Amino acid sequence: MKVAKFGGSSVASAEQIKKVCNIITADAERRLVVVSAPGKRCKEDEKTTDLLIALADQYLLKGSAEAELQKVIARYEDIAQNLNLGTDIIEEIRADLKARLAIDTNNPGLFMDSLKASGEDNNAKLIANYLQSLGIEAHYINPKEAGLLVSNEAGNAQVLPESYDNLYKLREKSGILIFPGFFGYSPEGTLVTFPRGGSDITGAILAAAVQADLYENFTDVDSVYVVNPNLVENPQEISELTYSEMRELSYAGFSVFHEEALAPAVRASIPVCIKNTNNPSAPGTKIIAKRQYALNPVVGIASDTGFLSIYVEKYLMNREIGFGRKLLQILEEEHVSYEHTPSGIDSISVILRANQLNAEKEMRLVERIKNELKVDKVEIERGLALIMIVGEAMHQTIGIAARAVSAIQRSNVNIEMINQGSSEVSMMFGVKEEGADKAVRSIYEEYFEKSYVEEALQNPYPVRS
Amino acid sequence: MKVAKFGGSSVASAEQIKKVCNIITADAERRLVVVSAPGKRCKEDEKTTDLLIALADQYLLKGSAEAELQKVIARYEDIAQNLNLGTDIIEEIRADLKARLAIDTNNPGLFMDSLKASGEDNNAKLIANYLQSLGIEAHYINPKEAGLLVSNEAGNAQVLPESYDNLYKLREKSGILIFPGFFGYSPEGTLVTFPRGGSDITGAILAAAVQADLYENFTDVDSVYVVNPNLVENPQEISELTYSEMRELSYAGFSVFHEEALAPAVRASIPVCIKNTNNPSAPGTKIIAKRQYALNPVVGIASDTGFLSIYVEKYLMNREIGFGRKLLQILEEEHVSYEHTPSGIDSISVILRANQLNAEKEMRLVERIKNELKVDKVEIERGLALIMIVGEAMHQTIGIAARAVSAIQRSNVNIEMINQGSSEVSMMFGVKEEGADKAVRSIYEEYFEKSYVEEALQNPYPVRS
Repeated sequence: MKVAKFGGSSVASAEQIKKVCNIITADAERRLVVVSAPGKRCKEDEKTTDLLIALADQYLLKGSAEAELQKVIARYEDIAQNLNLGTDIIEEIRADLKARLAIDTNNPGLFMDSLKASGEDNNAKLIANYLQSLGIEAHYINPKEAGLLVSNEAGNAQVLPESYDNLYKLREKSGILIFPGFFGYSPEGTLVTFPRGGSDITGAILAAAVQADLYENFTDVDSVYVVNPNLVENPQEISELTYSEMRELSYAGFSVFHEEALAPAVRASIPVCIKNTNNPSAPGTKIIAKRQYALNPVVGIASDTGFLSIYVEKYLMNREIGFGRKLLQILEEEHVSYEHTPSGIDSISVILRANQLNAEKEMRLVERIKNELKVDKVEIERGLALIMIVGEAMHQTIGIAARAVSAIQRSNVNIEMINQGSSEVSMMFGVKEEGADKAVRSIYEEYFEKSYVEEALQNPYPVRS
Repeated sequence: MKVAKFGGSSVASAEQIKKVCNIITADAERRLVVVSAPGKRCKEDEKTTDLLIALADQYLLKGSAEAELQKVIARYEDIAQNLNLGTDIIEEIRADLKARLAIDTNNPGLFMDSLKASGEDNNAKLIANYLQSLGIEAHYINPKEAGLLVSNEAGNAQVLPESYDNLYKLREKSGILIFPGFFGYSPEGTLVTFPRGGSDITGAILAAAVQADLYENFTDVDSVYVVNPNLVENPQEISELTYSEMRELSYAGFSVFHEEALAPAVRASIPVCIKNTNNPSAPGTKIIAKRQYALNPVVGIASDTGFLSIYVEKYLMNREIGFGRKLLQILEEEHVSYEHTPSGIDSISVILRANQLNAEKEMRLVERIKNELKVDKVEIERGLALIMIVGEAMHQTIGIAARAVSAIQRSNVNIEMINQGSSEVSMMFGVKEEGADKAVRSIYEEYFEKSYVEEALQNPYPVRS
């Protein structure tokens, strides 16, 4: 049994939904299907979810929102007509939306969640209806009836453990099951949406619950690329990636999907495959627990901007038991989360996402560090980018660091920071933001354009046994 | 005014003491002299301090220790005879030792401190006596009378702030002042010794107190070398070194002296010079706050073994606010101090000195991390060496990291860890202990043997403005 999830662009129009249904029916194992709300049909289009947010906002403000409601229904009408469906499904959707607008608006979070979630919910009904119209056994699955139970935090639902046993029973149902993504229900029966990457979360939970052989995540790219395609023309595709590698790449700006959404599937060791709805014969990128290592120990390169470093210096710092802990405690008390803490003997730098510090918080933080830790110097440096070079085989390969730092050096970018741990999947470099793209291109060249294989054979770097 | 400190080997025999007195009298600015107890005269010899410890131990055990006492006195007798001094000084030393043995043994720590400190104290009296015998105005200075006040922790005295004002008055005294190293007095009048590097500490305190123009630290090597002379034959000498550079080098196995002993001089910005009693015309190594940078951005290379890493892995670790702080808190509660914490997204390694963990503590630590932090994996890896490449100009030089990692790679040693911060004096590499010497030799070759200057001119690495 496979779980297939289709993102917004895959279900944005009748034409796309036909592609989706061809994909579903091409493999008898694709029995559990998670769908998003209709996304953008072209760059200028609006997502259904955004139309629904506008509808909810207007309704909360004015107590009515006929034009906004009509705009939402028009999206489904357009799809239904082009799929040659009857008007029943549109009437069902209209009634559903009216019922949602009629619920209590005194809790605007729950009201908003209910309207937002209708995008996925009604699209699932519509797609099930379309499959049925083709004579295929298909069922819309209601998350409440199926038992997808979540914590009661509007917009930030967390799956409850009992969901897995409930959802396991879906295995016994016949036909193709169309499951709306993005939301579940609290034990009290309230609809609650997931955080960012909501439909991906639903897919991952279902894949884990039914113990799927594969979780297919259909999107609009052929695969995950070894580097951001906006930086390098036609970059190489990644055929296999481990969970850890995916996570490290996603961390530093890989935006194929929100990788934390995968967590339930990762924990259950379900293989994941990223595929393209518009080119389903492309092999895609497989994300698995363990992979065969290729000759190239690097699997991907990513970078992200918007970091800053807090540099703290104090003579004899490393003899002061508890210094690092106290520094991190101050950050915690100020609700600042940090990424890395490279250190010298008398100095430590804390690298964090810069958007956490406004001017006032920055000043307070610097003052607290100065006064409470009695340090000699505190300096804040903004405009830092982190570059990650990722590959599980890297730490077994002598010379890997040398090639990476040489590549950055060739791009004429200074390395502000290197962070490489004892048994890790990645190597991290800090550079000034303005140099990040140049450095990434140079690293890509080093590992993916200079015909690594040939060079490695000519001038082999020893590999640890 | 200069403060000169002479170590144990510099005052081990009459011959050495003559050298010392020649050095003192060669420069009229050398007015405040700190001396150690007589050290080893040859490799097989015993240090006076060790004889004194044996004396104290035996006395505490048996209530008498005539043979041990005689052994100590014999050392001074030998020196005094060869300096053509009268017997008065030996009788004075004998009476002093007997008085020390007569004090209350109910506090063995203080008893031991008093006997240990007699090595420096009596040697100072003897050297002052010798200078006087040459017709030079010289005075033995009693630390109690001079007001060197310290905290009352046997073997671990910390200087009290009021000492500096007290000792400043030594400037007004005429003649050459011979001050015994290694100990001070608590405000209640108890003799207490300093921790490791005790005479160096006394020198640094005096240099700071009298606002000396220079603190000369006389030892038995011509200078500090850029690398451990046991690893590389005739390594280059370091002519100038900043305080920070010295500290980073000392941290990783540079054993010219215990660098923390310098702290009082560093805080008062007193320049320090390491010189050789046996070759006083050699320029030595100057340790100062700021130096002119040479073309070679690297000033020294050091390494130290005996580290271990605790590798901790937990999925979604970097989203868990407080994780790092909690990990460090556990270490703190277990009284384990750590050196560095390189980190990935879902992993963090804690590098620490391995001698802190016996099998029982290691087990408890691993259990606590597993249970309290609910991590996926904890692994301890022993046998780690840290290599430091030190130089303040390094972080302004593009390509410095590339050359270092290439050099390590050429030595066929795998880099387990790299730790380089945002504005630091050093770059740190972790390698397996068995590879450390090879890697250090290769780094030395890269920076000091390949005629850096010529190569840099031929193929210049850009320097940040």
